[in-house]
Amino acid sequence: MLIHDLDTPAVVCDLDKLERNIQAMARHCRELDIPLRSHTKSHKIPEIAHMQLASGAIGICCQKVGEAEVMVAAGVRDILIPYNIVGPVKVERLLRLARRATITVAVDSLATAQGISDGAQRDGGSVRVLIELDTGAKRCGVQSPQEALALARQIVALPGIDLQGVMTYPSRSEAKDFLDETAALWEEAGLPLHVISGGGTGHEAISKELGCTETRSGSYIWEGLSRVRSSQDLSDERCPLRIITTVVSTPAPGRIIIDGGMKTFASYPPVPYGHCIEHPEIQIYAMSVEHGHVDVSRSSHHFRVGERLTFIPLHQEMALNLHDELVGYRGEQVEVIWPVLGRGKVK
Amino acid sequence: MLIHDLDTPAVVCDLDKLERNIQAMARHCRELDIPLRSHTKSHKIPEIAHMQLASGAIGICCQKVGEAEVMVAAGVRDILIPYNIVGPVKVERLLRLARRATITVAVDSLATAQGISDGAQRDGGSVRVLIELDTGAKRCGVQSPQEALALARQIVALPGIDLQGVMTYPSRSEAKDFLDETAALWEEAGLPLHVISGGGTGHEAISKELGCTETRSGSYIWEGLSRVRSSQDLSDERCPLRIITTVVSTPAPGRIIIDGGMKTFASYPPVPYGHCIEHPEIQIYAMSVEHGHVDVSRSSHHFRVGERLTFIPLHQEMALNLHDELVGYRGEQVEVIWPVLGRGKVK
Repeated sequence: MLIHDLDTPAVVCDLDKLERNIQAMARHCRELDIPLRSHTKSHKIPEIAHMQLASGAIGICCQKVGEAEVMVAAGVRDILIPYNIVGPVKVERLLRLARRATITVAVDSLATAQGISDGAQRDGGSVRVLIELDTGAKRCGVQSPQEALALARQIVALPGIDLQGVMTYPSRSEAKDFLDETAALWEEAGLPLHVISGGGTGHEAISKELGCTETRSGSYIWEGLSRVRSSQDLSDERCPLRIITTVVSTPAPGRIIIDGGMKTFASYPPVPYGHCIEHPEIQIYAMSVEHGHVDVSRSSHHFRVGERLTFIPLHQEMALNLHDELVGYRGEQVEVIWPVLGRGKVK
Repeated sequence: MLIHDLDTPAVVCDLDKLERNIQAMARHCRELDIPLRSHTKSHKIPEIAHMQLASGAIGICCQKVGEAEVMVAAGVRDILIPYNIVGPVKVERLLRLARRATITVAVDSLATAQGISDGAQRDGGSVRVLIELDTGAKRCGVQSPQEALALARQIVALPGIDLQGVMTYPSRSEAKDFLDETAALWEEAGLPLHVISGGGTGHEAISKELGCTETRSGSYIWEGLSRVRSSQDLSDERCPLRIITTVVSTPAPGRIIIDGGMKTFASYPPVPYGHCIEHPEIQIYAMSVEHGHVDVSRSSHHFRVGERLTFIPLHQEMALNLHDELVGYRGEQVEVIWPVLGRGKVK
């Protein structure tokens, strides 16, 4: 089957480009001498995780327990969930996973750690834990090295908690003082600091400079968001993920409608919602739920109903999360149809 | 099982409120004396479609062929797909459906109609067709009564095309001249105008005034978007769809993090992304993919890790489309777990 035979909207992935991105990031991290932990929330497909591991990644990240279950079931054996796992149902699932694979989670409060410890005392087992530091992202994380120290002291001896170190996101040079001070305090207190996990595609070198023992990167496999936004930099050679659409209406001069809207591309702002490969001069300027509204006023091409147009979506991870399958192709040949097994695993 | 026992994030639906909304719209349309055609893209759940039909709706709408397949398989027998169905694969599926149920589609070009006719000549059968009018929405649709007439004349005799009338969306009073002139031209030309389909929740009375033979409404079952946006009008009594979340982090004064972000609520802007039932004074001010960032600075409540918070999502249809199941409850008791069978049917 050729990609031209696929009905639309079709979410497809250029395998040559995907493999190139995976290899390039692996090489980049080898050259920096920092271990890479690939974040699989960007794709949620076990076989792509295995490709990342085969290229040299030391393990993967999942953002939810349900995603980790999918990956463990596919044979992945080292997973960091950089997320506070809260509540007895999830903790029980976490402990089950930790019996089958090396599982590490983030915590930023005694309450989260205590919940895991309580579960471990009920069900047995233990979980590797990193304390999450808020080094500027203003999301989760303890707010200071002193808080990190205090929390570490509280949880290090809890049954079922195997404290391994700290994590932050994203790795920024501004985090240096926070990390250095935390390391000094922990050393003084005799606390274990085997892992300092940094993260963010594009932050690998900074992670190394900060002294991180690993760097978590995910969106590098699609290499798209920022490039599509600043279209002068766009090299579609680096963007494997595409959505093939069909023109379903050419109602008025300057406007065409394609058969994908918010339920195909995701509703993530801002305009433009995607970059057109065949006609970079056209722009998706609005989206209904199932219609994409495209401004073609700057194009000299005569668009016809039935014509196919290929777009690099703006937020590739959110777009892929809407679909059950990803079609991998090489040249024009369909090579694999991957079920997006981690899709919708919000728990 | 009680809803308090559900792990989070959980997408739940208050069945009393859902039934009330369904009955209220059915009564509203009866009082207006305009037939209601319920748009099921808002929920994608066959049993809810059957509830709408049982309340008096004359049929349903689906936005994609894949959604209509789900509904026909569940026994629904009258479906309008107000969408240009383009391409031989979809046309073949459409014709198969049209053998099992009364299926109507919109067209706004000869190309779309010709594609359906070509398919009908290959596979047999015919499809009921409405010509879509762009009466101001600037999406699909012919641009003038003259264009509607010209297209109707082109397609009325095509094999496999059963021209039934016209449709527009949304019904607006500004559409009156367009509709009246189209009706006059069609009458003069002896063209069939059995159906004039109007649409949009809240536009039922206008549809009647415009002379529509039916009104398509969908989002009335959730009754939420505009109310959450203008929070002073919000009556959560009318909003059945909720997302139960858990507080996973209380990292700094004024900020808490919940276990649902863009993959749970959808990324549809603007702020706020949802309305909190228990604490209307707090606000989701930002979203990561799996984290909701909540401003609690205006609340005197002391939020704890593990606490559950219930939100009415901003774009309820997009949020539900991210999830595989909807839990229906009454009081606090779980009564049904519906698979969202139409989810992800973008083709």
